[in-house]
Amino acid sequence: MPLAAVTLRVGFWQARQQLIRRVTLPAQYEWCRRTGRIDAWRLKWKPGQPRKPHIFWDSDIGKWIEAAAYSLMTKPDTALRRRVERLIDRIAQAQRRDGYLNPYFTVVEPGRRWTNLRDAHELYGAGHLMEAATAYHQATGDTRLLRVLCRYADHIDRTFGRRRGQKRGYCGHPEIELALVKLYRAIGEKRYLRLAEYFVNERGRQPYYFAGEAGARGEEMPVTSAIYRCTQSHRPVRKQREAVGHAVRAMYLYAGMADVARETGDRTLRAACRRLWDSVTQRRMYLTGGIGSTRQGEAFTFDYDLPNETAYTETCAAVGLVLFAHRMLQLEADARYADVMERALYNGVLSGISLDGRQFFYANPLAVTPASAPFLQPPMAVERQSWFDCACCPPNLARLVLSLGGYACSRRDDTLYVHLYVSGSVSLRDIYVTFETNYPWDETVRLTVWPRWPGRFTLALRIPGWCAGATIDGRAPKVRKGYALLTRHWEAGDRVELRLPMPVMRIESHPRTRMNAGRVALQRGPIVYCIEEADHGPQLHQVVLPRNAPLTAHFEPKLLGGVCVITGRAQREVRDGWGDALYRSDPRRPRFKTVQLRAVPYFAWANRGRGEMRVWIRT
Amino acid sequence: MPLAAVTLRVGFWQARQQLIRRVTLPAQYEWCRRTGRIDAWRLKWKPGQPRKPHIFWDSDIGKWIEAAAYSLMTKPDTALRRRVERLIDRIAQAQRRDGYLNPYFTVVEPGRRWTNLRDAHELYGAGHLMEAATAYHQATGDTRLLRVLCRYADHIDRTFGRRRGQKRGYCGHPEIELALVKLYRAIGEKRYLRLAEYFVNERGRQPYYFAGEAGARGEEMPVTSAIYRCTQSHRPVRKQREAVGHAVRAMYLYAGMADVARETGDRTLRAACRRLWDSVTQRRMYLTGGIGSTRQGEAFTFDYDLPNETAYTETCAAVGLVLFAHRMLQLEADARYADVMERALYNGVLSGISLDGRQFFYANPLAVTPASAPFLQPPMAVERQSWFDCACCPPNLARLVLSLGGYACSRRDDTLYVHLYVSGSVSLRDIYVTFETNYPWDETVRLTVWPRWPGRFTLALRIPGWCAGATIDGRAPKVRKGYALLTRHWEAGDRVELRLPMPVMRIESHPRTRMNAGRVALQRGPIVYCIEEADHGPQLHQVVLPRNAPLTAHFEPKLLGGVCVITGRAQREVRDGWGDALYRSDPRRPRFKTVQLRAVPYFAWANRGRGEMRVWIRT
Repeated sequence: MPLAAVTLRVGFWQARQQLIRRVTLPAQYEWCRRTGRIDAWRLKWKPGQPRKPHIFWDSDIGKWIEAAAYSLMTKPDTALRRRVERLIDRIAQAQRRDGYLNPYFTVVEPGRRWTNLRDAHELYGAGHLMEAATAYHQATGDTRLLRVLCRYADHIDRTFGRRRGQKRGYCGHPEIELALVKLYRAIGEKRYLRLAEYFVNERGRQPYYFAGEAGARGEEMPVTSAIYRCTQSHRPVRKQREAVGHAVRAMYLYAGMADVARETGDRTLRAACRRLWDSVTQRRMYLTGGIGSTRQGEAFTFDYDLPNETAYTETCAAVGLVLFAHRMLQLEADARYADVMERALYNGVLSGISLDGRQFFYANPLAVTPASAPFLQPPMAVERQSWFDCACCPPNLARLVLSLGGYACSRRDDTLYVHLYVSGSVSLRDIYVTFETNYPWDETVRLTVWPRWPGRFTLALRIPGWCAGATIDGRAPKVRKGYALLTRHWEAGDRVELRLPMPVMRIESHPRTRMNAGRVALQRGPIVYCIEEADHGPQLHQVVLPRNAPLTAHFEPKLLGGVCVITGRAQREVRDGWGDALYRSDPRRPRFKTVQLRAVPYFAWANRGRGEMRVWIRT
Repeated sequence: MPLAAVTLRVGFWQARQQLIRRVTLPAQYEWCRRTGRIDAWRLKWKPGQPRKPHIFWDSDIGKWIEAAAYSLMTKPDTALRRRVERLIDRIAQAQRRDGYLNPYFTVVEPGRRWTNLRDAHELYGAGHLMEAATAYHQATGDTRLLRVLCRYADHIDRTFGRRRGQKRGYCGHPEIELALVKLYRAIGEKRYLRLAEYFVNERGRQPYYFAGEAGARGEEMPVTSAIYRCTQSHRPVRKQREAVGHAVRAMYLYAGMADVARETGDRTLRAACRRLWDSVTQRRMYLTGGIGSTRQGEAFTFDYDLPNETAYTETCAAVGLVLFAHRMLQLEADARYADVMERALYNGVLSGISLDGRQFFYANPLAVTPASAPFLQPPMAVERQSWFDCACCPPNLARLVLSLGGYACSRRDDTLYVHLYVSGSVSLRDIYVTFETNYPWDETVRLTVWPRWPGRFTLALRIPGWCAGATIDGRAPKVRKGYALLTRHWEAGDRVELRLPMPVMRIESHPRTRMNAGRVALQRGPIVYCIEEADHGPQLHQVVLPRNAPLTAHFEPKLLGGVCVITGRAQREVRDGWGDALYRSDPRRPRFKTVQLRAVPYFAWANRGRGEMRVWIRT
């Protein structure tokens, strides 16, 4: 469904979109400018000069333009449009005669085009520019950037493939696969779909392309190298059974696979997508929708290995999971995909940005002890940062939030699916539906349906996996694959009231997640909660939640920009008289004092200074 | 007290010494030979040839000779002695005219002597050779190696110091400090003590020597570099308040500081040793006496940060803690030093070697999930290895165990201190004492005292910190600083019976050790226990020890070479019906099934195949 069909009204996501539009996008542009990411397109850099273009700067610009395009799509802004146009001028001027378009390999290593697909992110950058181009075209109707990227795509199409003289490679960082499908959808050029298909199918075949390429650079790359898994090239995609390696690369690849599977109807590819989906979401995903259990290689590890303090759970990986989930949902209207999409959006994605819209987390662990941060490898930030040398996350988050409307609904034949509940409306050729809700804080969603002509069709309302006892107009609906299907004759102004009860839930994790044994987490609606030092003082491991203590939620308009807070009685372990000993025998029964529990949404943590945080609380 | 004064009889440590003598020493020699560590002394290596000498191979040989010397001291062995002599031939022939003695900088980088003290381990290797030389001299009376090392020490003494033309440096890996004190004690040459003192005092002064040295190599080393802490050169030793950086380097340095403080009577240095002792043992030491909380940099982290699975706790660091403890004990007869020495010996050191004497752990974590091992950085071994490229631990462990007698007792004036209870005897000029005990498994130690002439002196028997209700001849003794002082008139054949009750103890750790919240460990006598997959199946986090469940210990002669096992009833959490979900709400009260707990000594873990292990058990 086109993003323009959905209009957000006052509510949770509109506030965030406005913040990103007003604060985040200009701030990110400024960072791009200051760090040389914009000037890089002038191709004036000379050896010895500062601000040497970096291999993936183009992707930052691509994501920023994409975000700006989504912003323009929902709110015209002449100044922003002019800024994007100027950027497009530069990009267009940077394109080479043959269509090639990459500042780094034009000015820094001009002889090395396409010689290191494994590390150089060349096709990855191309993919982000293609996404920018399709978004900008969609937003403005302007085809200039689209034409530039089609020329580049044509160049890539000539360069890669199985024909003689072509390189039989693919990118070490998947991304172009899904971007080519977008380009194909934008202009209908089948070659782009075929090229995406080629990239998906070629990946991981033996003999390994990356090994040959490394050999040509005079570098050895034994088959045991961890780089194959990192780059998602360890085996052909249809033979992959587990999500391994770099989590962001995995998500972008899986999303591209799902896109190709949808366009081609390839069943084996679809089956591979489902297997990998299960691997991620049933065995390797944090409660927040974060993925990537280890900071080393920003990677997946093994089943049920979800350490909280050392979790990497990169913001981009959660964004990527949303992309993958959304595409699975297009393949198959099953709310389990939407459940994960919602989980990641409200938690693992949103924790990546500060409430003031200016600062970002790259990693989003589920427990933080600030003193440990410098000892992690790489060291962990316990406060959000304004920018990063590798700045993938900030614009990624911006483009996702600004395009959120596109994830809310979808349509198949005469069924309108509602996946996410947002305050706003969806306007299609033959139907207009408004949603009034204060979701995710309130339980009620009121829909008003305005068909152009009264008639029979289906409204499919997602009943979230977290929700027990949902009602539609006071009655329990019949639910199929997570959707309540309201098939009826609709007339203008027909109203539906959906209630999604949101009691405070204690969550337990799989018996094999050793790190969460004896611990629970709190969730209300789609929101995962955490406790913070700001409310409880340090040593959060001493806070114990009795099994049956009543917990209630209430909205605090002045806290953290307005959030529901969970309160109740908790116990705090008090072990006095320790003196200097580090260990002692004959443990006394610990004393507990009753304390007020005050859990806040995980996404809003670290907005009140530096301190401890944890999602999984002792019980 | 000279090592030769102590003779071990049938018992725990004698068995281990015999194993190391029979199996470990020959196997280690063979590894040294096979890997080129022995041939390196021929100085025949040429660029392009295999088995290029490594900067710290000399230290492996030093430790091996030292271990062999201790073996010869307690059990003559002509073949072994011949083997050592041949090695000494080679070492002597490798010495340069000016006294310099380092194969790496003689054949691999001949122009680079003393140009990278920070990384090249040159003085560290020298130190280990000096330790070998004093041990071999003590064992055999032969002075050849001692003379070689004195010439080298003289060379080093000429090269380093504060006089004009000397290098004002010190080693990035402390070791030579304590070695020079040994050399000084062996031959009485004050210059060696002064040189040790210089190395201790110069360390960490500004401007940083390592920064200047790096500059001369064309390399920057900003004051913020983590290398200063790693190399124990971040500040002058008297200004160090916390144990930081590389744990082994810290221990060797502190041991050297304590040696210098003892010989010079320097009170500020002694105070620094005490402060660092407290930092290590009160806030940064595992229950096993392991130290070094992080695998990154093999280093200390921050107070109460003692993660179990990712602990590095290098075998060498536990050995180093024994060395440091032993020296603190010489400075001050306080059993808290001996308590830590015993804790490290029986647990964190001994876990480094397999029961067959052929395999070694470099890292000794307190919880292991085999699947996580390859994802740690550096990857973790879950089974002991025969050898390592960096093979510091195996010979370090060998030399310590073979010199264990030297740690058991000490004498000050007319007091004979007994620090460790071993089956054996101590024979001094004027007194002979036998110890009959099956410690650490049995509670009783029977001493028989044979003074040369009947007379009044003091027998100071350590009452271990872990022990409540110790009796001597049936009565509770008066204890001062951890020692029961038996001052009386002794006659030949006087007997003393010491009883050290060894109930199974549950241990709890400091309230701020977040990783052990809600967990206990088991200890009996000095032995720390663990549970293993071999006895309990996988998912050891599901084993829960009820607070009051009775636990008993019994000796199993056929298990793990004969160990006391702790048994009792435990609960195993059973959470059925999970299906595919990773998380679920409304946790049911978990079901527990009663299982047999069977805890084995931590030092003996991983001798029954690959599997999970944990020391801290849920309660």
